[in-house]
Amino acid sequence: MRFEEEKKELIHRLKRVEGQVRGIQRMVEEDRYCVDILVQLSAINAALKKVGYNLLEDHTRGCVSHAVSNGDGDEAINELMKVIQQFSKS
Amino acid sequence: MRFEEEKKELIHRLKRVEGQVRGIQRMVEEDRYCVDILVQLSAINAALKKVGYNLLEDHTRGCVSHAVSNGDGDEAINELMKVIQQFSKS
Amino acid sequence: MRFEEEKKELIHRLKRVEGQVRGIQRMVEEDRYCVDILVQLSAINAALKKVGYNLLEDHTRGCVSHAVSNGDGDEAINELMKVIQQFSKS
Amino acid sequence: MRFEEEKKELIHRLKRVEGQVRGIQRMVEEDRYCVDILVQLSAINAALKKVGYNLLEDHTRGCVSHAVSNGDGDEAINELMKVIQQFSKS
Repeated sequence: MRFEEEKKELIHRLKRVEGQVRGIQRMVEEDRYCVDILVQLSAINAALKKVGYNLLEDHTRGCVSHAVSNGDGDEAINELMKVIQQFSKS
Repeated sequence: MRFEEEKKELIHRLKRVEGQVRGIQRMVEEDRYCVDILVQLSAINAALKKVGYNLLEDHTRGCVSHAVSNGDGDEAINELMKVIQQFSKS
Repeated sequence: MRFEEEKKELIHRLKRVEGQVRGIQRMVEEDRYCVDILVQLSAINAALKKVGYNLLEDHTRGCVSHAVSNGDGDEAINELMKVIQQFSKS
Repeated sequence: MRFEEEKKELIHRLKRVEGQVRGIQRMVEEDRYCVDILVQLSAINAALKKVGYNLLEDHTRGCVSHAVSNGDGDEAINELMKVIQQFSKS
C-alpha cells in the first residue's frame, strides 16, 4: 500500500516538472528575460534532484539492503556508487 | 535571423526534455528498475544544464556586455553572479 | 593489511591536495591570471570529490552493510543519504 | 589598496583551507568515523567553492569587463564560460 502511495506521489511530482518544462518553452517563445528563465531552470533541476534522491533512498533501503542481507551486496554497492556519482554530477 | 534559429533550437531541446520527463513517468508506472530511472534522470539534468549554460552565454554576450559597454555593468554582473551560483548548485 | 594500505593511500592524496592549496596561495601572491587559479581550484575540488566518493564507498561496504546485516540498517541508511546530499552539493 | 586587502583575505581563507586539509589527514590517521570525515570534506569543498566564486566575480568585473569595453569581449567570454562550467562541475 505504502509503495503505491509513493509511486503516485512520484508521478505527481514528475507531472509538475513536465508542466514547468512547458512553462519554460513559453518563456522562450515570449522572449522573456534570460535570468528569469535560468531561475526557472534551476527550480526544475532542484525538483528533479529531489525526485532522484528519493529514488536513491528507496533503492538503498530496498534492493541494496536485500542484496547485502543475502550476502550478495558487492555488486549492488558497485552499481549504487556508480549511479550516485553519475547523478551527483548531472 | 540567427536569433530566431537559436530560439527554435532551444524550444526543440526543451520539447525533447519534456518527452524524457514523460518517459520517466512511464518507467515509474511500469515499476522499472530504480537505477535505470536514475540514469534517465541524470540524462535530463545534464540536458537542462546544457540549455542553461547556453542561455547563460547568450545573456553574457548580450545583456551583460551591453550594460558593461554603457558603463553600467555593476548591477548586471551582480545579477549574473547570483544566477550562476543558483544554477550551478541546482 | 589492505585497510592500512588504503589509509596510507588516502593520506598520500590528502597531502597532495595540501600542496595544491599552498600552490594556489602562491599563485594569488604572484598575481597570476584568475582563470588559471580557477582551473587549479577546479582540480583540487575534483581531487577532494574523488577522496570523498572513496570514503563513501568504504563506509557503505563497511558500516552500512554491517548495520543492514544486523537488521539495523534504517538509521545507517538515513545517515548515509544525508551525507550523500551534503557532499554532492558541496 | 582595496585590491591588496582582497588578496590578503583570499590568502587568509586559503591558509584556513590548508589547515582543514591537514585536519582531515589527522582524522584519517586516528580512524575517525567516515561520516564525520565526509562532513569535513564537504566543508572544505564549500569553502573552496566560495573562494572560486569570488575569483570568478573579480575576473568578470575586471578582465572580462575591460575586454568588453574595448570591443574585444568575444574571446574573454568564451574563456569565462568554459571556466564556469569546469568549476561548477568540480
